[in-house]
Amino acid sequence: MDYLEHIRALSEENSARILLIVLDGLGGLPLEGKTELESALKPNLDTLSKDSALGLADPIAPGFTPGSGPAHLSLFGYDPFRYSIGRGILEALGIDLEVGGMDIAVRGNYATLKDGLITDRRAGRISTEENSRITEFLSQRINKIEDTEIILKPGKEHRFVAIFRGSGLYDNLTDADPQKENSEPVLTSALDERSRKACRIINTFIEKAREALYGEPKANYVLLRGFSRYPDIPRMHDIYRLKPACIATYPMYRGLARLVGMSILDTGTTLSDEIDTLRENFSRYDFFFLHIKKTDSYGEDGNFAEKIKVIESFDRNLPDIIKMGFDVIAITGDHSTPALMKSHSWHPNPLLIHSRFEFRDNLPFDEKNCRKGSLGRISSVSILPLLMANSSKLKKYGA
Amino acid sequence: MDYLEHIRALSEENSARILLIVLDGLGGLPLEGKTELESALKPNLDTLSKDSALGLADPIAPGFTPGSGPAHLSLFGYDPFRYSIGRGILEALGIDLEVGGMDIAVRGNYATLKDGLITDRRAGRISTEENSRITEFLSQRINKIEDTEIILKPGKEHRFVAIFRGSGLYDNLTDADPQKENSEPVLTSALDERSRKACRIINTFIEKAREALYGEPKANYVLLRGFSRYPDIPRMHDIYRLKPACIATYPMYRGLARLVGMSILDTGTTLSDEIDTLRENFSRYDFFFLHIKKTDSYGEDGNFAEKIKVIESFDRNLPDIIKMGFDVIAITGDHSTPALMKSHSWHPNPLLIHSRFEFRDNLPFDEKNCRKGSLGRISSVSILPLLMANSSKLKKYGA
Repeated sequence: MDYLEHIRALSEENSARILLIVLDGLGGLPLEGKTELESALKPNLDTLSKDSALGLADPIAPGFTPGSGPAHLSLFGYDPFRYSIGRGILEALGIDLEVGGMDIAVRGNYATLKDGLITDRRAGRISTEENSRITEFLSQRINKIEDTEIILKPGKEHRFVAIFRGSGLYDNLTDADPQKENSEPVLTSALDERSRKACRIINTFIEKAREALYGEPKANYVLLRGFSRYPDIPRMHDIYRLKPACIATYPMYRGLARLVGMSILDTGTTLSDEIDTLRENFSRYDFFFLHIKKTDSYGEDGNFAEKIKVIESFDRNLPDIIKMGFDVIAITGDHSTPALMKSHSWHPNPLLIHSRFEFRDNLPFDEKNCRKGSLGRISSVSILPLLMANSSKLKKYGA
Repeated sequence: MDYLEHIRALSEENSARILLIVLDGLGGLPLEGKTELESALKPNLDTLSKDSALGLADPIAPGFTPGSGPAHLSLFGYDPFRYSIGRGILEALGIDLEVGGMDIAVRGNYATLKDGLITDRRAGRISTEENSRITEFLSQRINKIEDTEIILKPGKEHRFVAIFRGSGLYDNLTDADPQKENSEPVLTSALDERSRKACRIINTFIEKAREALYGEPKANYVLLRGFSRYPDIPRMHDIYRLKPACIATYPMYRGLARLVGMSILDTGTTLSDEIDTLRENFSRYDFFFLHIKKTDSYGEDGNFAEKIKVIESFDRNLPDIIKMGFDVIAITGDHSTPALMKSHSWHPNPLLIHSRFEFRDNLPFDEKNCRKGSLGRISSVSILPLLMANSSKLKKYGA
């Protein structure tokens, strides 16, 4: 029997409320002896931490640096090796583009084609405004091929997302992208019989786009990669019997939450907006995923000082969250983003679980203390079962 | 190759003796700052502990609260997700009812049927004495259907166990229990072709029981759930090459040990009886499972003080055990039963391994110190391989 089937068989609803706070890219590495968490002034977080159980959580497995997709799936209780999210889908989620269950989504680049060769895979990084104009123009020219509707939406600079919405479209397709410059463009190929229709339509789209963009000086071709359909992931309610809600200011995280069946709550752009949303919806759901983005953004920028400030700002807001009265609160990251590395990393996430059925480790909240905590070092996929257990939502296994 | 096949290929016999002491439900949670283990006066255990390696062991997986069955299978070195014990079997073991390899065992409830509806699934919780009388009466009336012998044995209050002993009986059967009151009774259904014979006989039994119990005011119907055959678990001797023996005062633990092929040693009802049995049999086996029940019983009752006393009583008896001269001694729980929760819990078990080939962590024995120990946090299924390694019974893997 599959692990999630065991969880499904043991899960039961009750009125206890769980809050999972994800500070994106929270974990760090020391700069001049201290990590971002160790450097931050965070009296409220440390007070909570001393009254909580600490541990470390590997997002995927030691040495695996995750993207946002698998890192969040893991936090939502799904084995990220088993459930994967295609790149096209993730890009669509990232710009708030809705994808239907039968659609194919794909990441697009505008590119420069000259004398039969792709001379620039990013069309000279055209501006986002120019991208919008070109995408608008393309959308008007090509919106249907055979029975298939084509939806285009611009991203930043040279990036866009295309959705192919028709019947019988399958995504076992090679990338229509030579991956390197000064190469001839390549079309997509179907890797199985049932993907042939999609292959034909997509290659027709590429050809029509080339014709339509003929006059453009830079963005006169499209490269498409990561053809993917909506993943077949069981909903959190079906497995964990939770009524889950997502509060996130960035579209990609709302999209990831939607993939597992969370209700997406309207919120503003600040942490304070997110907390208001949490308060207003407190009684309506029994599981909340609250996402805070900026820790990761500043980590990616290598901005140690600003990452600290985001943690400190969260700390000032924490008492408002605590007083709402959740039964179980977890605070963690999806992956680490050490400012020192300017990128996601494989280091395990600091983890705090506050519940009356956990130990009180009496330790402040940072990477080193999490290593000493009573939760030990676990996989991120075990966090949700632990939160379920702590809220008495997971029945005994076997008699 | 399966994990147990690796173990089988590496295991070898020698004269070293292993003792696994299981204090059922040992682990706890702090009440006024200290757990049961932290509160107990246990000078002998702490002396041993300081000279041993400590760690934490997850019985199943983080967040999973185990029943006694899976928790013990794990301690005996069997993956509890892979090998499962049906409820009927476990109930039969719990009342010392022998189950043959081809029998079907099932948990029964006496219930009240009125105007075609089950009005009380527990027949008003009739007394154990009344149960005995009714079960005796039923046993006389119905002891064979077709070629199948029927063995009934009373449990406590409204509970009994039935064994169906015949040829070609299979257990892929739905429960004959509507699960809720004021519902019509349901019969069992066969979920595959080969279970049809058992289905027919069991439904005949239910019908005959109804006729026989016609005059009873409360217990006039039987509900049956958890039809199960003896699980197909390889014997410890075949995998680990051990000659294992069980010393336990409660039938269920003897039954679980019998499932994996241990010899069951006759013993009395006290810890001191169990220690005498251990001493008398020391030379006859190379692996002993010594089970102490009361830590769990008082944990389930929420009786913090009495749970402490059981630990202290064990501590007083420990020197008698140590001086027998085992090569390797492990002390742990099967699962935690914090008095605070009055139930089994998911928290990892404190674990101590005493062997001349382990570190001496120089720490007293409790949950917090186990967290710091040299064994780290492992799964309970890894305990037996560690004990094998420490007694030089597990050869090198690969050259």
